[in-house]
Amino acid sequence: MVPIISVVGRSDVGKTTLLEKLLPEFKKRGYRVGTIKHDVHGFDLDKPGKDSWRMARAGSDMVAISSPDRVAVIRKVEEEWTADRIVHHFGADLDIILTEGYKRGGAPKVEVYRKEKGGDLLCSPEELVAIVTDERFPINVPHFHWDDTEGLVDLLEERFITHEDDSNGVSLWIDGKPISLKPFVMDFIANTVKGMVVTLKGIKTPGIIYLHIKKRLHV
Amino acid sequence: MVPIISVVGRSDVGKTTLLEKLLPEFKKRGYRVGTIKHDVHGFDLDKPGKDSWRMARAGSDMVAISSPDRVAVIRKVEEEWTADRIVHHFGADLDIILTEGYKRGGAPKVEVYRKEKGGDLLCSPEELVAIVTDERFPINVPHFHWDDTEGLVDLLEERFITHEDDSNGVSLWIDGKPISLKPFVMDFIANTVKGMVVTLKGIKTPGIIYLHIKKRLHV
Repeated sequence: MVPIISVVGRSDVGKTTLLEKLLPEFKKRGYRVGTIKHDVHGFDLDKPGKDSWRMARAGSDMVAISSPDRVAVIRKVEEEWTADRIVHHFGADLDIILTEGYKRGGAPKVEVYRKEKGGDLLCSPEELVAIVTDERFPINVPHFHWDDTEGLVDLLEERFITHEDDSNGVSLWIDGKPISLKPFVMDFIANTVKGMVVTLKGIKTPGIIYLHIKKRLHV
Repeated sequence: MVPIISVVGRSDVGKTTLLEKLLPEFKKRGYRVGTIKHDVHGFDLDKPGKDSWRMARAGSDMVAISSPDRVAVIRKVEEEWTADRIVHHFGADLDIILTEGYKRGGAPKVEVYRKEKGGDLLCSPEELVAIVTDERFPINVPHFHWDDTEGLVDLLEERFITHEDDSNGVSLWIDGKPISLKPFVMDFIANTVKGMVVTLKGIKTPGIIYLHIKKRLHV
């Protein structure tokens, strides 16, 4: 699974600004980074007068625009997708995902806190990986100054970015939900599929394998 | 695989308008429909002053915004994705995909033609499923008038929307490319995975199974 880190904090405290500092630092180190913003109020992406999104209004469940360097997609969903599910569908090949918000999600959190905004920390020490702040809190969580982007990325890289060799790189989703299995069971399934795949012509060293089974088979 | 139909035609002939008529008709019949627009010139989704997309400019490989009823995503890509690949990642659970453009792609095509715009048909009869036109062509391809949305959807539904029972609902992608296999091989792989899955606690009747193997296993 791709590691997900949530940047949380009170409104207007600088969450987006922190993300804008973290992203280039991860990129500089050669990682593929994704971001997810949680917007409970819904959003409006339509540019009036732009053909591109006229289809969204005509009831399309998915609208995609593809160009040589990027793909943009709007998907309708029946219930709000978790960050995990978004990553599974749209970013399973990335190295790390940073979210803005998702205060109530289960991902480890970096809280942004500014003295002038006041109040308590939003997260308990157990949820926190780090605090980015100009204040000192009596808890055992690493504190970072605004300027120390490198230090914070060092910590996140070390703690969360797993390298191919030692990662459990198999994930199984059934009917939209991730299935958690013991590593040896995952390895057993993965090796079985891999074993079938390597016997097929022209596929000697498969890297990333996606298998999607839609059929309701009778077993 | 989800069927893909490309709506093509000369510029300003009404391709988007046709899509806007087809979409509600498919929705009315209970199908989940996606659309893909091919934009060779790139596109600009950023709304000036909107936080949401500031991250895209900061170098994120994926930017997603999630709300209770939809998810919007921009993915950077290293080379242009085919319509097949977009569907695999973003719309594998849909019933049919309509594209605007993709004249050179391999999908079956509906050509929109208007006498006042002149010229020849863009597609050869072999590529065409239907022509939407006010002109008569001496080729053996069904012609539809602008108003006959129902007739055109009848044809597309009958020819392309496969129902669960008789569809080959298994797809296998390795390193970003679809792997084409004989149905019995696909069934063998699918049944093997399904067989492993049904033995696992709490997963008696799996519907859609996604298996993603990232690890470079040593087999």
